[in-house]
Amino acid sequence: MAVDTRDRIVDSSAELFRRQGYSSTGIKQILAAAGAPFGSLYHFFPGGKEQLGAETVRASGRLYLELLAAIAAQAPDAPSAVAAFFSGAAETLVETDYADACPIATVALEVSSTSEPLREACAEVFDEWIVSASRFFVIAGLEQQAARELALTMLCLLEGAFIFCRAMRSTEPLEIAGASAVAAVNAALEDRARDAR
Amino acid sequence: MAVDTRDRIVDSSAELFRRQGYSSTGIKQILAAAGAPFGSLYHFFPGGKEQLGAETVRASGRLYLELLAAIAAQAPDAPSAVAAFFSGAAETLVETDYADACPIATVALEVSSTSEPLREACAEVFDEWIVSASRFFVIAGLEQQAARELALTMLCLLEGAFIFCRAMRSTEPLEIAGASAVAAVNAALEDRARDAR
Repeated sequence: MAVDTRDRIVDSSAELFRRQGYSSTGIKQILAAAGAPFGSLYHFFPGGKEQLGAETVRASGRLYLELLAAIAAQAPDAPSAVAAFFSGAAETLVETDYADACPIATVALEVSSTSEPLREACAEVFDEWIVSASRFFVIAGLEQQAARELALTMLCLLEGAFIFCRAMRSTEPLEIAGASAVAAVNAALEDRARDAR
Repeated sequence: MAVDTRDRIVDSSAELFRRQGYSSTGIKQILAAAGAPFGSLYHFFPGGKEQLGAETVRASGRLYLELLAAIAAQAPDAPSAVAAFFSGAAETLVETDYADACPIATVALEVSSTSEPLREACAEVFDEWIVSASRFFVIAGLEQQAARELALTMLCLLEGAFIFCRAMRSTEPLEIAGASAVAAVNAALEDRARDAR
């Protein structure tokens, strides 16, 4: 079986996890969405749904990191990058009828107390996001600890806003959370400039 | 069947939703946890699991509002109330081995694209939280729109932090998100004081 079948299975899982979470997504539904034969699941993922779930979380985590890097590379400065990240997320939500936000958050809340392999996959992804966003803020001029605090603040605002936006079918929470994230970036950069004087 | 059986069913649902979400919680599991006979579910909830789910979301939403009001009543000012809200949430997480955060967020992410009755219940609860928290910040001295923005910022920080804390088994995200929420409150109060001068 070709490697692209494996990729299609992971892509279909990610899409279904985003829309309805891990628990209510069945193996048959994933394989049907991927156009993959039934035997392919255990061929590629001998550990079954839990292994596929962990791999989907890790693959989605990498995709989001690439997205963050691409947005950061295009923006003229850190506040603009953060603003673009939130407005891009709001656009995607509207385009997908409030379905496509974050595939990892839903899984994380569902499995954190029930599956150690899946919880660990989510924790690894979150850790990478925090480290990458911290690095971005260090490059923007912040000290390590201030950069980490800002990274976590931004990510909490983003993930929290996704919950409210999807349930309320409104982009208002993302717009307000984005403005608050930008304000936090500006405040941290001003503090740093003041310390440096 | 006594009314307290109905309450026990809702309480057990809320606990299971917090730990493992809506989709993976079965009716039999809820009734066993509540010590309720099988017939009691459809006696009290003719609409079955979806009706019970919506009622659980609404009941949990009211409980969280009462908690917010109790914390606000004890705190000397708005920043202290917000700080106490986040530190109380972190204590509960540790006490429950990172299981008990918010029963509504998990359900909201699972069902927003698949069940309108459940999505609407989540949206109603979120709306009440935003309105109540806004009212609290208006009483603290803010204008209506600034109060709403601060309420949403605080709630996004809280819900986002729950996701990271549970997956990472750490209270760091809640501590940082709490500090950011307090900073946002202080900044809004300072802006207001400046405008009033």
